[in-house]
Amino acid sequence: MSTKKRFAIKIEYDGTNFMGWQAQPNQRTVQSEIETALEKISGKLTRIVGSGRTDSGVHAIAQVAHFDTEIDLSPNKMRLALNSLIDRDIVVIKCVEVKDDFHAQHDTKSKTYEYRILNRCSESALRQLRAWHIRSNLNIKLMREASSYLVGKNDFTSFCRKKSLTPCNVRTLVSLNIEENFDEIILRITADGFLRHMVRNIVGTLVEVGRGERCPDNLPVLIESRDRRLAGPTAPSHGLFLVDVDYGKDIFE
Amino acid sequence: MSTKKRFAIKIEYDGTNFMGWQAQPNQRTVQSEIETALEKISGKLTRIVGSGRTDSGVHAIAQVAHFDTEIDLSPNKMRLALNSLIDRDIVVIKCVEVKDDFHAQHDTKSKTYEYRILNRCSESALRQLRAWHIRSNLNIKLMREASSYLVGKNDFTSFCRKKSLTPCNVRTLVSLNIEENFDEIILRITADGFLRHMVRNIVGTLVEVGRGERCPDNLPVLIESRDRRLAGPTAPSHGLFLVDVDYGKDIFE
Repeated sequence: MSTKKRFAIKIEYDGTNFMGWQAQPNQRTVQSEIETALEKISGKLTRIVGSGRTDSGVHAIAQVAHFDTEIDLSPNKMRLALNSLIDRDIVVIKCVEVKDDFHAQHDTKSKTYEYRILNRCSESALRQLRAWHIRSNLNIKLMREASSYLVGKNDFTSFCRKKSLTPCNVRTLVSLNIEENFDEIILRITADGFLRHMVRNIVGTLVEVGRGERCPDNLPVLIESRDRRLAGPTAPSHGLFLVDVDYGKDIFE
Repeated sequence: MSTKKRFAIKIEYDGTNFMGWQAQPNQRTVQSEIETALEKISGKLTRIVGSGRTDSGVHAIAQVAHFDTEIDLSPNKMRLALNSLIDRDIVVIKCVEVKDDFHAQHDTKSKTYEYRILNRCSESALRQLRAWHIRSNLNIKLMREASSYLVGKNDFTSFCRKKSLTPCNVRTLVSLNIEENFDEIILRITADGFLRHMVRNIVGTLVEVGRGERCPDNLPVLIESRDRRLAGPTAPSHGLFLVDVDYGKDIFE
């Protein structure tokens, strides 16, 4: 008789050809692709629980999920079995056995997203699906000034997709760094949680600042307003990468 | 009456779906795609001259080519016209008018290639067509030691594709730097000229060194032998990027 084990997996995916993370009827999603592979391995329906959803087109370098299985496979064999059954736009980077009370969503301490902007005149042949192309020269100094108002414990209602307001929209934004790397501007945002579209709405707003269309000191007013209509547009999904999920310790060590 | 002008273009391309740079009958190549677009713009066959060929699957961040045209378009309008007519895996980044004796191939002072190795256990969903995946841990210190023997003026016959030996296989390798960036090892090679497959054969040989299968001090012997069979295998094309063509001055300024 085999006993039930809980596995945690770290997953990289190219979000281009997925309708996001979450399983949906008749849609190709990351969750459903992995669950289909697990069903082939174990012979029965196996649900996986991710650290959270990512939207259609959003990439992940290190999404985390857990699932329970009675299949007698070592974590490494499970990783190889999954990778042999799923398409190459998803890769299970790591697989470990975890305590049976580990929960990929509830145990999250913080998550980190990166948003990539290609800031130059011409498009890119190699990064067209990996960065938001913006032609006008963005003022990074102003963007940094504006971003400083977002760091800390704030009500992020102004940056939340209107239709999906949660009971509480207060989150703690741990850090928001903006770096230049040749022709790219990379925003790296860590928070204890994210509202729907929060990163992309923050980026869309900071890009307005970088273009000189919004003053940095408009940010406190905007946060205070709790009005999504006053923030900038939602930045496109293909510039966004989930790069880290923190559980207070490295569960994949 | 319009006068003939010479234009130089800087081109980025994703080499994945091309049979390399050079025009060939019934093959999709970078040169032929751009020439087809030029013919649509000018109404006549227009040959372009590249700084050199790249092989099937090799990418370019900054290939350079020139062509002559009598079409009355500003360089920027020509760039926009070309980009509107070619597929998105080629992008003309810059276009300038140059003197009529500028030659994209003959005036080259040096070229720089980057070769990317993904050095970790699992494959990558996002970089599967942008780096050579090597599972075994490479010893970079040994690779750097070996690479030092290649720098300078050498006969690179041992690293040249056998079938395409040129009259003289002596080239000056200006620099060969090896850097680590998280899970990637990036080799950056500058030379006054490259033989066919030279970068990929150098990389294949240095990877043997990094795996501990070849000693760094084998390199002088290997160079001296002028025997391709004694060098390592040809590294796959999809890790290779043409990143710079130097004409002694920035012609795109």
